[in-house]
Amino acid sequence: MSFVVMKFGGTSVANLERIRNVARHVKREVDAGNHVAVVVSAMAGVTNQLVAWVREASPLHDAREYDAVVATGEQVTAGLLAIVLQSMAIPARSWQGWQIPIMTDDAHGVARIKDIPGDKIRARLEQGEVAVITGFQGIEPNRNRISTLGRGGSDTSAVALAVAVRADLCDIYTDVDGVFTTDPRIVPRARRLAKVSYEEMLEMASLGSKVLQTRSVELAMVHRMRLRVLSSFMPPENLRPVDAQSWDEIGTIICSEDEIVEQHVVSGIAYAKDEAKVSLIRVEDKPGVAARVFGPLAEANINVDMIVQNTSSDGKHTDMTFTVQGSDLDRALEVLRGAKQEIGYFEVKSSSDVAKVSVIGVGMRSHAGVAAQMFKALAERGINILAITTSEIKISVLIDAVYAELAVRTLHSLYELGKD
Amino acid sequence: MSFVVMKFGGTSVANLERIRNVARHVKREVDAGNHVAVVVSAMAGVTNQLVAWVREASPLHDAREYDAVVATGEQVTAGLLAIVLQSMAIPARSWQGWQIPIMTDDAHGVARIKDIPGDKIRARLEQGEVAVITGFQGIEPNRNRISTLGRGGSDTSAVALAVAVRADLCDIYTDVDGVFTTDPRIVPRARRLAKVSYEEMLEMASLGSKVLQTRSVELAMVHRMRLRVLSSFMPPENLRPVDAQSWDEIGTIICSEDEIVEQHVVSGIAYAKDEAKVSLIRVEDKPGVAARVFGPLAEANINVDMIVQNTSSDGKHTDMTFTVQGSDLDRALEVLRGAKQEIGYFEVKSSSDVAKVSVIGVGMRSHAGVAAQMFKALAERGINILAITTSEIKISVLIDAVYAELAVRTLHSLYELGKD
Repeated sequence: MSFVVMKFGGTSVANLERIRNVARHVKREVDAGNHVAVVVSAMAGVTNQLVAWVREASPLHDAREYDAVVATGEQVTAGLLAIVLQSMAIPARSWQGWQIPIMTDDAHGVARIKDIPGDKIRARLEQGEVAVITGFQGIEPNRNRISTLGRGGSDTSAVALAVAVRADLCDIYTDVDGVFTTDPRIVPRARRLAKVSYEEMLEMASLGSKVLQTRSVELAMVHRMRLRVLSSFMPPENLRPVDAQSWDEIGTIICSEDEIVEQHVVSGIAYAKDEAKVSLIRVEDKPGVAARVFGPLAEANINVDMIVQNTSSDGKHTDMTFTVQGSDLDRALEVLRGAKQEIGYFEVKSSSDVAKVSVIGVGMRSHAGVAAQMFKALAERGINILAITTSEIKISVLIDAVYAELAVRTLHSLYELGKD
Repeated sequence: MSFVVMKFGGTSVANLERIRNVARHVKREVDAGNHVAVVVSAMAGVTNQLVAWVREASPLHDAREYDAVVATGEQVTAGLLAIVLQSMAIPARSWQGWQIPIMTDDAHGVARIKDIPGDKIRARLEQGEVAVITGFQGIEPNRNRISTLGRGGSDTSAVALAVAVRADLCDIYTDVDGVFTTDPRIVPRARRLAKVSYEEMLEMASLGSKVLQTRSVELAMVHRMRLRVLSSFMPPENLRPVDAQSWDEIGTIICSEDEIVEQHVVSGIAYAKDEAKVSLIRVEDKPGVAARVFGPLAEANINVDMIVQNTSSDGKHTDMTFTVQGSDLDRALEVLRGAKQEIGYFEVKSSSDVAKVSVIGVGMRSHAGVAAQMFKALAERGINILAITTSEIKISVLIDAVYAELAVRTLHSLYELGKD
């Protein structure tokens, strides 16, 4: 007997037939004696329609009103799923963010969950009632205005709810079978990972693997909540209830490193194509220059990712290269041109034909030589490395975009990720 | 300077273009220095989609969940209108039923408004902020579940809000120009009425004239709130602000009888085609028979409208004829057949080819002879009267449906309603 939070995204609740499918997943757990809270997204397409209406109303709109409009999508799904569950003789009740309440800060549109009093819901679960909860939304500190967490926020809602009701497991049902060693569209031999550590998942999420929202993984890591990513498209009756399952069998568990017995040195290869490279040519090489370059960018809310500073040839000037999100490139160039006097450089060059490819694995902490192998393999394929960043469990290289797939395949083979 | 509640129905907010049109109506009043609260319905079609989803989820559904789903329609409109108003530099804020709160009883799906604390909203209006309020919905006494008032409930929301904020006027914007002496589709010479008393409007509403929800008129009458029905499709700039208008010029004012200086004996002709006639043949004519017939119908929640009992021919039996809503006919027949032993009758006959035509006017109170004129005029046209009911300010006759239009035209001419 477990307390389980089950989260279903937009494609899993896209129409009534899919919602009925979700209800059968819930029924399987209820029939096994488990206590279930369900977190739902808006039906696929509904949020886009609502956002389109808001933009049509005014391109510049009050975030509080945006939240009031857009939050209705999840409210519809929650009510419909509660009705379907009731029609299957499962006691169920829908809950909107303000009814629980899911308390957030007042950053409308990108709010962060601050607190969820879980006792009321936990008591309902203990009585055998299924709680169907709207993802993506909450209520701001004055407890009068609906807030939303930003796109993909329902993952975070689910994890926060799981923490609040002291659940044993938070199952994230999605349209993929789990987390893979890399994108199966690029490497058909990519393998589902049975377990991934929070740290690895964070690196993957922030590196463009869009299975889970980064914040949800952070929250799970802080509270040591076990997450599982699995597909809602498997026939619900083919799965066994959570307590009866062998954990390696289905989906991917995201858990603490110490729960993962057989660690690979490298767990996965991630890539991101929405990077852009900016080079400042002949920057004056004197103390404080980095602050003068990156200060104005930070003020403009532009995240800088990789940074490379070449050694100075004449002792007075250097070239400085860094990357930003592709969508931030125009704004970054504007900021840098505006600060040309202050920074002191000869010219600025940019390119968005670059990709970032990353090797991730907690095993790197104790294994030397991963980076050297990686650079050698890429060099043998003639792939030029434009920049490098590393963390304890990750090595990222910036390369020409045309080589992205080749690099991913090369590294996937190199670390034998296709093998069981 | 006035406090005004403006209510806009589904066709008036059907898309963003129409919502912008609504915003221009609001702007006209704000620019004139008036304090404005707006009550909105769901965009036309949205509520039907939501109801269809609920029915698809389960034909038998929890009314609490129905309410949670269906209430989202108004929430979307309120947010969008607030955004459009803000984009026109008009301070505005959306309010959902639970945020005000609009307190209702717990009859989900057909809830009645119990109380609205109006001071918070009134204070916002005094500060010059436009309050955009969701019609059709509120929150039940535990203040945790959304309730809805039933279809057309937004009229009632608007009147209740107007009472709560102590408004000077409640303007109901709709897709017709006001209340007419009769249906202009039947009588092209039908004339807009500048003023109608609450009592007359109540009779018209309950007799099939669908301009306003009956409950909203009752509420306005109890609180002596002036209502006005007018069209949202007139260019907003062609209207003058409420304080500057001559009241006869636009729409129809619904007000106290004593405000109407020049009273007509008859104000309007209403008709309803969704009636059905039921006749019980050879009912035993003894005390208590009416209770035995109408008791079971009342228990089944079937409203009986007109009742005619013929005199007994043999002193022992009588025929009894009455009308019910067409949509209740099958259920009524079922109930009567089930109670055949108890009631004691020979057979039951029914017909839905009947129509009710009514003459309405507060002037009837002081003028005799209206009924006699009516019966004579219908007889001259060869229209047979199947049943009659009267109230102080209304005479209704049941006739064959094929004569409905002829009867309406005849009566409209008889009382000279087409003349100014």
